[in-house]
Amino acid sequence: MKQKQTNLLLILSLILLFISCNQQKEGSILVKNITEYNNAVLNAKPGDVITLANGVWKDVELVFEGMGTKENPITLTVEDKGKVTLEGASNLQIAGDYLVVEGLVFKNGFTPTNEVISFRKNENELANHSRLTECVIDNYSNPQRNEQDYWIAIYGKNNRIDHNHIAGKRNLGVTMIVGLDTEASRENHNQIDHNYFGPRPTFGNNGGETLRIGTSHHALENSNTLVESNYFDRCDGEHEIISNKSCQNTYKYNTFFECTGTLTIRHGNETMIDGNIFIGNGKPSTGGVRVINEKQTVINNYHIGLTGYRFRGAFVMMNGVPNSPPNRYVQVTDAVVKNNTFINCDHIVLCAGSDAERSAPPINSEMSDNIFYHESKSNLFSVYDDISGINFKNNITGLNIETGIPNGFKKADIKLVKNESGYLIPESDAIKTKVTISPNIATKENTGVGWYSKAETNMALNSGKTIKVNPGLNTLFDVVQNSKAGDIIELKAGEPYYLTKTININHPLSFKIEGNENAVVLFEKMAAFEIQNGGSLSLEGITFDGAKAPDYAGNSVIRTSKNSMNNNYKLFINKCNFKNLIVNHSFDVVKVSQNTFADTLSIQNSTFNNITGHIVALDKETDDIGAYNAEYVIMKNNVFKDVQGAALRLYRGGTDESTFGPFLEIDHNVFDNVGHGKRNKYNAAISLYGVQVNDITNNIFNNSKAMSMYLVVGEPIVNIFNNNLYNSDEIEILGDQKYTVENIWKLNPNFTEGTYLLSEKSPLIKKGTDGLDLGIISKKQ
Amino acid sequence: MKQKQTNLLLILSLILLFISCNQQKEGSILVKNITEYNNAVLNAKPGDVITLANGVWKDVELVFEGMGTKENPITLTVEDKGKVTLEGASNLQIAGDYLVVEGLVFKNGFTPTNEVISFRKNENELANHSRLTECVIDNYSNPQRNEQDYWIAIYGKNNRIDHNHIAGKRNLGVTMIVGLDTEASRENHNQIDHNYFGPRPTFGNNGGETLRIGTSHHALENSNTLVESNYFDRCDGEHEIISNKSCQNTYKYNTFFECTGTLTIRHGNETMIDGNIFIGNGKPSTGGVRVINEKQTVINNYHIGLTGYRFRGAFVMMNGVPNSPPNRYVQVTDAVVKNNTFINCDHIVLCAGSDAERSAPPINSEMSDNIFYHESKSNLFSVYDDISGINFKNNITGLNIETGIPNGFKKADIKLVKNESGYLIPESDAIKTKVTISPNIATKENTGVGWYSKAETNMALNSGKTIKVNPGLNTLFDVVQNSKAGDIIELKAGEPYYLTKTININHPLSFKIEGNENAVVLFEKMAAFEIQNGGSLSLEGITFDGAKAPDYAGNSVIRTSKNSMNNNYKLFINKCNFKNLIVNHSFDVVKVSQNTFADTLSIQNSTFNNITGHIVALDKETDDIGAYNAEYVIMKNNVFKDVQGAALRLYRGGTDESTFGPFLEIDHNVFDNVGHGKRNKYNAAISLYGVQVNDITNNIFNNSKAMSMYLVVGEPIVNIFNNNLYNSDEIEILGDQKYTVENIWKLNPNFTEGTYLLSEKSPLIKKGTDGLDLGIISKKQ
Repeated sequence: MKQKQTNLLLILSLILLFISCNQQKEGSILVKNITEYNNAVLNAKPGDVITLANGVWKDVELVFEGMGTKENPITLTVEDKGKVTLEGASNLQIAGDYLVVEGLVFKNGFTPTNEVISFRKNENELANHSRLTECVIDNYSNPQRNEQDYWIAIYGKNNRIDHNHIAGKRNLGVTMIVGLDTEASRENHNQIDHNYFGPRPTFGNNGGETLRIGTSHHALENSNTLVESNYFDRCDGEHEIISNKSCQNTYKYNTFFECTGTLTIRHGNETMIDGNIFIGNGKPSTGGVRVINEKQTVINNYHIGLTGYRFRGAFVMMNGVPNSPPNRYVQVTDAVVKNNTFINCDHIVLCAGSDAERSAPPINSEMSDNIFYHESKSNLFSVYDDISGINFKNNITGLNIETGIPNGFKKADIKLVKNESGYLIPESDAIKTKVTISPNIATKENTGVGWYSKAETNMALNSGKTIKVNPGLNTLFDVVQNSKAGDIIELKAGEPYYLTKTININHPLSFKIEGNENAVVLFEKMAAFEIQNGGSLSLEGITFDGAKAPDYAGNSVIRTSKNSMNNNYKLFINKCNFKNLIVNHSFDVVKVSQNTFADTLSIQNSTFNNITGHIVALDKETDDIGAYNAEYVIMKNNVFKDVQGAALRLYRGGTDESTFGPFLEIDHNVFDNVGHGKRNKYNAAISLYGVQVNDITNNIFNNSKAMSMYLVVGEPIVNIFNNNLYNSDEIEILGDQKYTVENIWKLNPNFTEGTYLLSEKSPLIKKGTDGLDLGIISKKQ
Repeated sequence: MKQKQTNLLLILSLILLFISCNQQKEGSILVKNITEYNNAVLNAKPGDVITLANGVWKDVELVFEGMGTKENPITLTVEDKGKVTLEGASNLQIAGDYLVVEGLVFKNGFTPTNEVISFRKNENELANHSRLTECVIDNYSNPQRNEQDYWIAIYGKNNRIDHNHIAGKRNLGVTMIVGLDTEASRENHNQIDHNYFGPRPTFGNNGGETLRIGTSHHALENSNTLVESNYFDRCDGEHEIISNKSCQNTYKYNTFFECTGTLTIRHGNETMIDGNIFIGNGKPSTGGVRVINEKQTVINNYHIGLTGYRFRGAFVMMNGVPNSPPNRYVQVTDAVVKNNTFINCDHIVLCAGSDAERSAPPINSEMSDNIFYHESKSNLFSVYDDISGINFKNNITGLNIETGIPNGFKKADIKLVKNESGYLIPESDAIKTKVTISPNIATKENTGVGWYSKAETNMALNSGKTIKVNPGLNTLFDVVQNSKAGDIIELKAGEPYYLTKTININHPLSFKIEGNENAVVLFEKMAAFEIQNGGSLSLEGITFDGAKAPDYAGNSVIRTSKNSMNNNYKLFINKCNFKNLIVNHSFDVVKVSQNTFADTLSIQNSTFNNITGHIVALDKETDDIGAYNAEYVIMKNNVFKDVQGAALRLYRGGTDESTFGPFLEIDHNVFDNVGHGKRNKYNAAISLYGVQVNDITNNIFNNSKAMSMYLVVGEPIVNIFNNNLYNSDEIEILGDQKYTVENIWKLNPNFTEGTYLLSEKSPLIKKGTDGLDLGIISKKQ
């Protein structure tokens, strides 16, 4: 019996040994669930490799802690790269020394905490000498767009974050931060290199930065972080692509591709910005470097096709606040801006933000050996205060450029020559040192990981197939159920399309008409269309009749989801008619909700008749923190007739300066009897607050409330040109900002009977800014 | 070969015959999916019975159409009652003659159209001579509380709707309507009987009626609908439990059990209201019948324990508008109010709503042989205009009652005697005809269906087990994951409870402390607690410290879901402390979202120190249609110190009169340095708009913004008594309604050092309405 037991024990031991050998072959442990993982971490020794088994790891909160050594780090990796995903409510904390994390993919979920990946377990247990490499965080966004988190929070020292793919953050909060809140994270010599920062859409609020190093609270601490050879691909969140908020950081060889905003030295001193490139391709609001604070060095950077103005110019040097508190603007001193190249960049801004508070211009600084070339624009420089504190030396400009700055610029005949990598290099006899792009420069190819695609996955409007649909009961609803992103639904004129259900639009869809007539849509629900998260909508050639809508307050033809949408949406309305929205006292055309954001909301060539509510009220972000509901709003060549509410309310409250918009264009419309309803709380046909660009031209207001406008923050652009207000209220402009109003007429438009075209007798003929009649555009012109 | 084929055909035919016999035995067709169902309906003949097979029918939109005969109707039924449920996006349309629908259960979903069950397919194809019986619609509510639908829409003629169970509607829209929009639905002789209308929670907006017959557009059409022996159980949606909006309808033998609101004859004439009972049990806002329009008869009704006042009195006769438009108030003429009994009902209101517009008092009417008994209250009658048009005859009151009406009332010594059914019957020599309750009266037992429970399924706060939880990292979060509705989580003092995740409260949960100390909670997310749909929260004895919250606008300690909550929630805060909510400029204590509604929000015996935002802003319903965010708001015995925002903003916009609240009680608080923050857009310590009951008593405002109040609609009750405003702003009361302010002092409260108790030297000692000190209540008193 004894012998038997011994034998059994021996066999068991051998089995255990075998299992353990199998699992821990050369210190490599394959783990298949969180319990095995935790066990492996608990027992990890220097040199161990913990490997997550292939598959989906759902709702796992990994803590990776241990003490590796320089020679024998502890590694957390995956069985096959790309075949392990962390989904749902998952995240990772790293704490200890010499730890390597490799190959993790976070997608289809969001972290329940404030960080997806954190280089600490708590304030006292940090990661040092550790590396995060070849990891992916792809659209791992909280569905609540105003719920804050960071995707990568870097603490500790001597860490390297490299070759990661980080794309599609759609909720509040900086994508990657370097935290300096304790001594143990300062003078950190962390290195952030060869990461691919993929697209981050316009956030429409503060908190959309891609990288931030430090905070205003610790801005005077040295961070000593190196940010090198990273690719920033359309990081459009907000003004600050990178927000530098500490001292002695270095930014080298990074590429900023079509990013709106700037690399901003928001706080902290002694920053080195060297050899980066900024490619705008003419996209609005693309910028370069913005300099604030002391002893900043900006050298050897290459900028092309940047259009941004004001705080997102191709180069911006700001005014400071005398004795600035930490969260305001420290005066620029001892800046060196040298050997930078600007090709077809529209705006160089000096003393930006100059106002009563920001009254201290740059001092003891130099701008030298820079090259400015623009093929079409001559006035690139905007100077808002005294620039005598900047020593301009040996700068070269194209022949057409007028800087307005007396010394330090020399004109030269510059030619652009493509180099072997395809960059346009300015050449001229005057340019002594050839402009070069470093071979270390980040490209889409040499950043991120090879095994995870950087291709676009979103389908655009009108990119799919065309589906014909016949009139009838819910035929439109049914066809949408079987549609795919980008499809075009083609309607026909004649019998109405009747809806007893709201059509939910959860991917981009277009609706258009066969031929040149209009299809008619009647609907019984509180809305015909609801744009949901991921959806965009284009409507063309459709007449919406509100006659069958229910008698409840809150009706609209089109609305957004009442839940948060973390995807921005687009809404295009063209050649549509909206009529009889009268069953109830507050029947809007478009109704949006809080926590939704339109990239573009465009209404063109359409008519609106007999509406009790608003055409569109973009007024749901009422917290006054700089948030708003739409970036670009366009109203062009429309007739608004008998509208009791406002044609437009567009609201951006607060004094935050991190956002670009809203941008508004109202051109060639007729407003006839608009805004007089007693429930129109805006008491105007058009009511604007905090809008950043206001182009309002060539419109006719007839028997209408006119426009009220409150200008605040951000030096908004206000062009109110060539409008006619007949029997209508005066334009009211309040606030603390400058504006231009030219050519307000008060003439009877004398419309041709039955149309809104100006008649032969109209005194207004050919008076638009574009030479066309005011109001709607006649095809004859 | 030929022979073989023939044989094969023969066999096939036999098989088909067998199958068809099997399925259609005696005209009964068991169908297992929507295709079989549609096929059966298509081929249905008089006498056929189509039976839905047991199981869940998901996303089925049933159209039940056909032509039965009186003797041989076509029936839609279920295999086993209670075992067939229609879920998801399901609904039913009935069209044709002599159709019977029986046993369907709708739950776990909501209709994508405007009706769950409709007695028509479209405007032209209606149901007549048809019956809906023993069907259930249970909480089949759209998750968007402001998305409209009807649960049962009755059209056509001679239909019977009986013994259905209809409970838990939580979204916008009347539960059951009779539509009269076409001739084919008028003089309909439809009968609605023995239905169980289960609880409908307070909706906080117009559109929460339980039954509506007609609309203002067709109010003068005869409907001839009989509503008999139905049980209305806590139908609290809004003012109008039933909204009668057509002529010649009869309401008999219905029971209204603890329903807030009234059976309202809103439009239409010649209504008969006979033999109904209204049981209030002292619940607030319970009412009886409200009479408007011409030739109404209200007889033999029994009322007990109704507390409602103004429009929801136990009996209300309104003033009319001279030459009233259809949607306003037609003058009462020829009303007969006879043989009704009122026991312990607090308010009888005559000429209700009298104002400049509603200036026509009742004429040619009588109130006779009614009995009024109240064991404690003597002044039951409120008379707002000339009652000479009402002939009062032979009414009997208890000895204590003073009607103030000169003729037509006789006092009698009334005793209450329980009858065999348990109803308290008034008896007296003066009562010639014994008060009786009809044996046809609706009870919970004789209405609805026997096979579907009427029991409550919601767990109340504090009804579950107690779970102890130790301090530590996310221990609180983890314990909640394993909690059940009604549980009590017991914390302990000492080390802090630290949260890196927001605790989602999706069922009723209480958090309290062992002993008399406070537990400390620190949190890293934008909120410590989020109340989600279905959740309620009670907090007792917890100190919340905001020191670890993130630096983003929008922080709060407690918030509601940002998505619609169609369940009302409760929030109780007792003996808690909130401090250091200062990391950001707008850090609130409680933050609510649009489309959420609190039944009760109570803050008592708590302290608030150093807060940058608001304590609570109930200000998210900005559409000005009568919607608001909370019914009862209570702030009692709290100290608010150094609060930059408002202690309270409570907003109810618009002029709709269908709602009861908000009800507000602010008693015995100290406001010390409250409301002075430059971002406090309400510019007040307390900012109220449209609040219906305002009890503001015994408070001390010290160095604070005071209170601003806008009174509008509904004759709000305003009791502002015994408040002290030292070095604080004046109370500002605007609007068009009456109010009472008494005893405003401006004395230095002279607090005892280190407390907010009045010192011996305070000139304010013992001056509260309750005889206690103003401000917080000393235990010594």
